[in-house]
Amino acid sequence: MGLVVQKFGGTSVGSVDRIQNVAEKVARTHAEGHQVVVTVSAMGKTTDELVSLARQISSHPPQREMDVLLTTGEQVTIALLSMALQEKGLKARPMTGWQAGIQTDPIHGKARIDHIDTRRVKECLEWGEIVVVAGFQGVSAEGEITTLGRGGSDTTAVALAAALRADRCEIFTDVTGVFTADPRMAPKASKLKEISYEEMLELANLGAGVLHPRSVECAMTHQVPLVVRSSFVDEEGTCVKEADQMEEQINVRGVAHDLQVARMKVLGLPNRAETLTTLFTRLANAHINVDMIVTSEHDDERIDVAFSVHEDEGDEAQSVIEEYQGELGCIKVLSETGLAKVSAVGAGMVTNPGVAARMFTSLSEAGVRIKMVSTSEIKISCVIPKGQAEKAVRELHTTFGLDVEEEALAGVVS
Amino acid sequence: MGLVVQKFGGTSVGSVDRIQNVAEKVARTHAEGHQVVVTVSAMGKTTDELVSLARQISSHPPQREMDVLLTTGEQVTIALLSMALQEKGLKARPMTGWQAGIQTDPIHGKARIDHIDTRRVKECLEWGEIVVVAGFQGVSAEGEITTLGRGGSDTTAVALAAALRADRCEIFTDVTGVFTADPRMAPKASKLKEISYEEMLELANLGAGVLHPRSVECAMTHQVPLVVRSSFVDEEGTCVKEADQMEEQINVRGVAHDLQVARMKVLGLPNRAETLTTLFTRLANAHINVDMIVTSEHDDERIDVAFSVHEDEGDEAQSVIEEYQGELGCIKVLSETGLAKVSAVGAGMVTNPGVAARMFTSLSEAGVRIKMVSTSEIKISCVIPKGQAEKAVRELHTTFGLDVEEEALAGVVS
Repeated sequence: MGLVVQKFGGTSVGSVDRIQNVAEKVARTHAEGHQVVVTVSAMGKTTDELVSLARQISSHPPQREMDVLLTTGEQVTIALLSMALQEKGLKARPMTGWQAGIQTDPIHGKARIDHIDTRRVKECLEWGEIVVVAGFQGVSAEGEITTLGRGGSDTTAVALAAALRADRCEIFTDVTGVFTADPRMAPKASKLKEISYEEMLELANLGAGVLHPRSVECAMTHQVPLVVRSSFVDEEGTCVKEADQMEEQINVRGVAHDLQVARMKVLGLPNRAETLTTLFTRLANAHINVDMIVTSEHDDERIDVAFSVHEDEGDEAQSVIEEYQGELGCIKVLSETGLAKVSAVGAGMVTNPGVAARMFTSLSEAGVRIKMVSTSEIKISCVIPKGQAEKAVRELHTTFGLDVEEEALAGVVS
Repeated sequence: MGLVVQKFGGTSVGSVDRIQNVAEKVARTHAEGHQVVVTVSAMGKTTDELVSLARQISSHPPQREMDVLLTTGEQVTIALLSMALQEKGLKARPMTGWQAGIQTDPIHGKARIDHIDTRRVKECLEWGEIVVVAGFQGVSAEGEITTLGRGGSDTTAVALAAALRADRCEIFTDVTGVFTADPRMAPKASKLKEISYEEMLELANLGAGVLHPRSVECAMTHQVPLVVRSSFVDEEGTCVKEADQMEEQINVRGVAHDLQVARMKVLGLPNRAETLTTLFTRLANAHINVDMIVTSEHDDERIDVAFSVHEDEGDEAQSVIEEYQGELGCIKVLSETGLAKVSAVGAGMVTNPGVAARMFTSLSEAGVRIKMVSTSEIKISCVIPKGQAEKAVRELHTTFGLDVEEEALAGVVS
């Protein structure tokens, strides 16, 4: 008998029928003799509806109040799922973030989990109850309701699994697993049986969209085996685990893309040691996540810096830089949207120096314009025009020998 | 400068526009130099929608889960109202029941407030913030979310006013005050300028519908002056206060009615001392509120008992009695619905012995069939067929000299 944490996202709990379907899956795991903790998101479009209410009152609703508002979404789901489980004769206990002891920092809208006081959850598990926890939310030390921001429900699930030392954490989603590329863009993509935390982290960061990077990071740190599988199709998913426990080392494991990229160019900065520190500290203080960074030296006096951010944070990044333009001493700030990022990811890459060259050749032969490049030990990323992203993904998928002949799209439920 | 608690019900916060209207009223009170605590209900039909979701999953949704579900309604309102106040440049702080320190017993769906830990609310008031508290909800000692049941938001407001020693508690509603009768039934009804706690308590219990009896009880116990006034029309409301501070003693102050009455008859009970104790203890344990009770002695061995309950609790009352039929030793249980209760209320009644006689005469001359009678020092109630309620209210209103000539309906917004 083990302890399993299962997470179901907004699509998986989008209607009463689907909540009953989730109850069925949870009941099956419980019947196998496991203790089960379930974390859930808000039902389908609930969050959008709540955001729209807030927007009618304020063009920039305050984040603390947004957290109070949005956390009602998951609270509705935990109540309904607990009812559905009880209808099946099982004992179930709904818990909001604060009830489940999920303590966060006080950064509303983007809070990070500080620690989880698992006493209440453990007590209920010992009573034989299935614990149903609201994802995406927590409580600050000051007793304010917080949300974890993008991908928050995945993070809740993994953090709970880590805190409870669960045997595994299953992320149920609308795809059947992690693919070598998005099958909607590369029809010859195939599902991976397993992938390392590091590779998954790069894929997650690069917009594979299946798992949020924060949740993968947390799983890696605490060595929680993750399983990504479908809420709708009953088939084995993809297991995310330690690289050294994996069967084979593959050169490039997958091709990822991210269609929401903005690039900022800060031109003519003084070529001094503290310039980059100042720039990126100001951005970090504004809670802007900078992704790729490229610097180029003009001459001894001036450097240019380009960096990419999520499309949604482009405007804020620009206004932060403009606010500190005097302090930074830069000449010009330019921003460009309508960009995408494509990446080749694989733990085998580090021992295979030709990968970057093959990637650039493949893209340039396909007429794709490369605007920025960034590399790590297990990935190479290129920023390109958004309109060329699909072509680029297909080309790279073929180049790195990932194409399979059967139609893999069958495994994806839209 | 004083401290004012204001309560706005579901109709008053039924849309974004109306929430902005509430913000305007609150802002005005704040601008007069008062500290303000606001309690709000769920927006309009939210509760009904949530109940309908639950019913799709379970025909008898468990009450603990219902509380988790329904409390999201007020949580949405506190977030939106706080945003609307901040849009006006005011500092506002949303608080759920548990955040506002509202500790209740663990009876889900019908919890009673044990005490309020006002530290957090007081702290925020001292910082110059308007505190916006979710009505109707609290938290049990075990950390479970509870709801206060019918009229819960009024109770939250009055209990907060008592705990904070507020100067007054204003209940904003969809009528302009307390009337001598429901103007929709008695067109010649007029608004009362003031009424005593005791009279209001009888009116509330008797279905005047403006204030929940629990909230009046709480106000009376803690001597909190209550003001009932309109959310939509800007006019003075009705003040509920101590009888000895009132200007004049009136014979009958108003005529109340309640259209949701069921009557249970338990026939042939053993004529023993413990019979009534057993019967009403069993009902109390099932949390059924019994209203009027009439007993009649058959002979030395048998008595009949009739009592009235809220229509919604009729079925449950019947099944409780049937469950204990053996223990009670009764011969037959009958229930009757489709009943109403009409009552004449007034603190002057106690010194005026003719009131009951005038009431019975008036009703019988109008052809109204009286099925049960109950009296107290300040009220006389009769259970009658629901279809005759409107006629009965008008007759009594005329009989007791309450008719006014101008059209008082103008003051009521439907």
